[in-house]
Amino acid sequence: MKQVADTSSGYSYGEPDVVQSAVSVRDLDDLKRSAGFTEDDEPYLRLAGEVLADQTRQIVEHWRGGIIAGIPNLARHSRTPEGDPNPEYLARSNLRFQQWILDTCLRPYDQDWINYQQEIALRHTAAKKNKIDGARSTPFVPLREVLTFVAVMNMTMKRYLAAKGHPAEVVDKMHDAWCKSMQLQLALWIGPYADTRRAPREW
Amino acid sequence: MKQVADTSSGYSYGEPDVVQSAVSVRDLDDLKRSAGFTEDDEPYLRLAGEVLADQTRQIVEHWRGGIIAGIPNLARHSRTPEGDPNPEYLARSNLRFQQWILDTCLRPYDQDWINYQQEIALRHTAAKKNKIDGARSTPFVPLREVLTFVAVMNMTMKRYLAAKGHPAEVVDKMHDAWCKSMQLQLALWIGPYADTRRAPREW
Repeated sequence: MKQVADTSSGYSYGEPDVVQSAVSVRDLDDLKRSAGFTEDDEPYLRLAGEVLADQTRQIVEHWRGGIIAGIPNLARHSRTPEGDPNPEYLARSNLRFQQWILDTCLRPYDQDWINYQQEIALRHTAAKKNKIDGARSTPFVPLREVLTFVAVMNMTMKRYLAAKGHPAEVVDKMHDAWCKSMQLQLALWIGPYADTRRAPREW
Repeated sequence: MKQVADTSSGYSYGEPDVVQSAVSVRDLDDLKRSAGFTEDDEPYLRLAGEVLADQTRQIVEHWRGGIIAGIPNLARHSRTPEGDPNPEYLARSNLRFQQWILDTCLRPYDQDWINYQQEIALRHTAAKKNKIDGARSTPFVPLREVLTFVAVMNMTMKRYLAAKGHPAEVVDKMHDAWCKSMQLQLALWIGPYADTRRAPREW
């Protein structure tokens, strides 16, 4: 599988230090049913992974440089508490952001995947944000900002999914599968936010 | 504005018993920015409201009877704790569900709207579920199920938005505005779940 991030950039998918989630594969099956995510979506996610594989850098630059940088309440989470740039932190987290696009499309949604969703969420909460990068930045990303920014990712994703000339109905199916996966992932991300017991200030 | 639900069915938009949310219109502006929801989306939501106005009953029947009824972990929330039908509860909440589609499209997103988002969320938590209907049912709907079912609503909504023959690009813009609104509303719904302090069991 194509990888753009490895442990040197703080990516630790499937590594022993990733804590087991209380959410089981069976729990995820229930969530898939609630989201209307079926086996029919899986080949379209795989195809999306192929389509996006050489575009992840461009997509993350679009999100980070083109959109987030212009929204102060989002941009601050990559900056120092004083609002200065944090280029090393940004570069490392951008690599993981790219990798996350690939993982969304190409990884099997098994226990390792569930566990890493928990790790991703923790790295947005006060429990783990900044730690793996030794960064000075905001202590957490409010869950509300994660939830709403998903809408931006979903909207911008369309053009990248269409970039390889697939028929409109195939692009739509890739996009549907992507959007369903986003809601599944959000459903997994809320757990660690609740566990921090700092809600609702972190939201 | 078209209404399908009124106070006799437990709908209390703008009524004095709806508690003021701690989220201000200014906070909502930040969330809109994070979601990429702009003034350009507003006319498309209004148009969606016109397109959907005579379809809300059909849509809710599709969701409730066609989809939720077939997913036990969702269907139980309209049933008694023993799993029996609860027709009066279902009928009242279906009317409010229809009204919510209209409110999503046609209400101004002002403090009343924010306050009623809080009320809607509370009515899914142990704080208020069943109370306004005097119903016997599950004590709460887990937030994870709300979050994932939004994917189903977003997918099924496409065909209803297209039902009046608007050009594909207009249907897409209505759908984009709808989907952004869903993430905004989810961002507002998480607050009351956190406030119940029963997380993560309710998730």
